Amino acid sequence: MDYRIIQVKEDILEENSKRAEELRSILKNKGIYMINVMASPGAGKTTLLVSLINKLKKEFKIGVMEADIDGDVDALRIVQFTGVPSIQIHTSGACHLTAQMTHDAINEFNIDNLDLLFLENVGNLVCPAEFDTGSNINMMLLSVPEGDDKPLKYPLMFEVSNIAVITKLDTKEIFDFDVDRCQQNIHMRNKDAKIFEVCALKDQGVDELASYITTLVKENKHA
Amino acid sequence: MDYRIIQVKEDILEENSKRAEELRSILKNKGIYMINVMASPGAGKTTLLVSLINKLKKEFKIGVMEADIDGDVDALRIVQFTGVPSIQIHTSGACHLTAQMTHDAINEFNIDNLDLLFLENVGNLVCPAEFDTGSNINMMLLSVPEGDDKPLKYPLMFEVSNIAVITKLDTKEIFDFDVDRCQQNIHMRNKDAKIFEVCALKDQGVDELASYITTLVKENKHA
Repeated sequence: MDYRIIQVKEDILEENSKRAEELRSILKNKGIYMINVMASPGAGKTTLLVSLINKLKKEFKIGVMEADIDGDVDALRIVQFTGVPSIQIHTSGACHLTAQMTHDAINEFNIDNLDLLFLENVGNLVCPAEFDTGSNINMMLLSVPEGDDKPLKYPLMFEVSNIAVITKLDTKEIFDFDVDRCQQNIHMRNKDAKIFEVCALKDQGVDELASYITTLVKENKHA
Repeated sequence: MDYRIIQVKEDILEENSKRAEELRSILKNKGIYMINVMASPGAGKTTLLVSLINKLKKEFKIGVMEADIDGDVDALRIVQFTGVPSIQIHTSGACHLTAQMTHDAINEFNIDNLDLLFLENVGNLVCPAEFDTGSNINMMLLSVPEGDDKPLKYPLMFEVSNIAVITKLDTKEIFDFDVDRCQQNIHMRNKDAKIFEVCALKDQGVDELASYITTLVKENKHA
């Protein structure tokens, strides 16, 4: 039984990588930059996206794809608070998005005029890290209430994320969260990770992240 | 590809259910009550266990099995702050525990004299809910910073949990968390779920949960 599970998983991951490369190539031809956003449930993904998009939408045409097992609250929030187009993907119980699921969703979503596409993955620090979605970059969020030790317990998520955003920073005293120790733990998993510290509800630190993303999207346009 | 994945998953779940029933039968013969503890990363599982165990350890012989992808901070915390035996299970990257993994861990852990065994699952609101571990009961934690809408997005976790514990209750004003709405959302997924509200660090609400667990363990002894 164990061997069969491992073999099937390897096949799935290999197939997924091919689909991801195909999707990246399609997006490149259209000049679209896609960011895969991952985090635990309730880490503040949608709240950060709302704040980011309101800073970026004057310069770029933006779309959002929201993945959840059930519900549509996140896609509605994006439309209501930013005005940019958003669709909700339901994963039929799956704990992560695959490249194929992402591609299927894109086929139902008019992306042709977009510069920047955010993909909000299922809230989960484990499984989404295993599957390349076809995005250009992975951005993960770690919220202060979760604790500064999370990189010790969920290594792959931090290894595959180019950007790590520490969210809900205004609560660091309440939760005895050590930002320096957290940065060390993140860099132990990925020495090149670019770390940002934000409190999206109070508009703290989001400008720096928006500026970094602006550079990435512009580089992609001119690549 | 899709059919093959579904078929393998059904096989795995069916095999897992058999293993879980076998393990429950073994535990029953030994008079041991096992509680599977599930939650998002950083929801406060270990903190709640420390508080609970210090209230229950005079009456019962207790053991703890801590599952994580990597690290051993939780097992060390349990031993340091409660004095009860604890082992760390590493899941080799897996996002959940199976009944077989639980059984293998029990074989390495001397449980013969225990009355109560806590199994702390991998921090994840999705996958652990799919796999029966062989425990007598599922206890899930939802921390206030995650938000009161989580039952809408992660239905299965709430459906399979007999006990739902709202943790970090002292921060409900900070995070605009509506306890009544959260209770309604939980009961929408599972009308029989027993809900507790705690702040383990301030020793609020944990006595009620300890009392409920005491009744369950005693009933198990006399069943």
